[in-house]
Amino acid sequence: MKIYDYKGFPNPARVRAALAEKNATDKVQFVNVDVLKGEHRLPEFVSKNPSASVPCLELDDGTYISECSAITEYIDHTFPGISLTGTTAKERAVIHMMQRRAEQGVLDAVSTYFHHATPGLGALELYQNKEWGLKQHERALAGMRYFNDFLAHQPYAAGENFSVADITLFFGLSFADAAKISIPADCTELVAWRARIAKRASMGGTGS
Amino acid sequence: MKIYDYKGFPNPARVRAALAEKNATDKVQFVNVDVLKGEHRLPEFVSKNPSASVPCLELDDGTYISECSAITEYIDHTFPGISLTGTTAKERAVIHMMQRRAEQGVLDAVSTYFHHATPGLGALELYQNKEWGLKQHERALAGMRYFNDFLAHQPYAAGENFSVADITLFFGLSFADAAKISIPADCTELVAWRARIAKRASMGGTGS
Repeated sequence: MKIYDYKGFPNPARVRAALAEKNATDKVQFVNVDVLKGEHRLPEFVSKNPSASVPCLELDDGTYISECSAITEYIDHTFPGISLTGTTAKERAVIHMMQRRAEQGVLDAVSTYFHHATPGLGALELYQNKEWGLKQHERALAGMRYFNDFLAHQPYAAGENFSVADITLFFGLSFADAAKISIPADCTELVAWRARIAKRASMGGTGS
Repeated sequence: MKIYDYKGFPNPARVRAALAEKNATDKVQFVNVDVLKGEHRLPEFVSKNPSASVPCLELDDGTYISECSAITEYIDHTFPGISLTGTTAKERAVIHMMQRRAEQGVLDAVSTYFHHATPGLGALELYQNKEWGLKQHERALAGMRYFNDFLAHQPYAAGENFSVADITLFFGLSFADAAKISIPADCTELVAWRARIAKRASMGGTGS
């Protein structure tokens, strides 16, 4: 299988981290889509993913899967090892919910701020609504506070175990760094969680 | 288990349809949250769902699950019968992706238009950004056209089989009716699909 992505961007990083957690990085051929040159908007790529976004997974039968959460769903159900999306009905529902909160409340909020209230990707930004972007800045801070409170009582973003919710939240915070949104100073639980997650080999840490 | 919801609203309708598809409606106790009176914003409900939105599922052990797609994930994995979220890795990924497209491209786009570019829920609307709302109107029409093209080649919103993607798209179109967004006249495949889905007993049809 192939993954079309752009290394270093937050959503591609989510999928790469999921693959690393499954020890499956070498099962995939990565194809670079140069987002900064607008390659994701060319007809050839849009025919693969009409949303014109990376990453996009191509299965060996020619099926294309886009949307990070759908790609990580595929990865989790295909490769053995740690479960990233849960096994029981309750685990699956809780992880799904918490990943959505990390996505909507942090990563997507940061992304919308970046693309609408800052220069974003420059000439690639076809429409900007600055007021909406600034509103999403508030939302991102609220999302960080929500997870800070949650992590005061639980070790991971969906509770007892590491999951895709941690991956999404982690790269949401990476995107916040890039967009110059600071984690509120009183979010000490969130900062401690982040330092712990950063040590995982899948996140580029030493695995200690 | 209990479901806190408000009958007739699009997101509660998604969960009720999933329960009906599983013949499990009578397994759940419904608790009315009067959204039009703002009950979803009272501290008692926000302690159950910090997003202050319906529906919200309460499990017998006191766990609260919000986000429609997480609730339908729970329902699908708990009750026997038709699979709504897929069984193989590929089915799960495709259904997940198509449900996201129905959500982002239709239901959420319509919702944002309704809450930002129309009077919405009146005094309950605490912040409106009309320009953003109008942009989402365009997005909703593009989402409808996307599914119209897809349904020209496939019987259901995620392909061969009925799934949560159909439920989400169906109630996205119901919301569009309520928000007075018309389906483009040339979207004949989408209209034919909708008429077919409406016949299902879970959607209030006669099941014929």
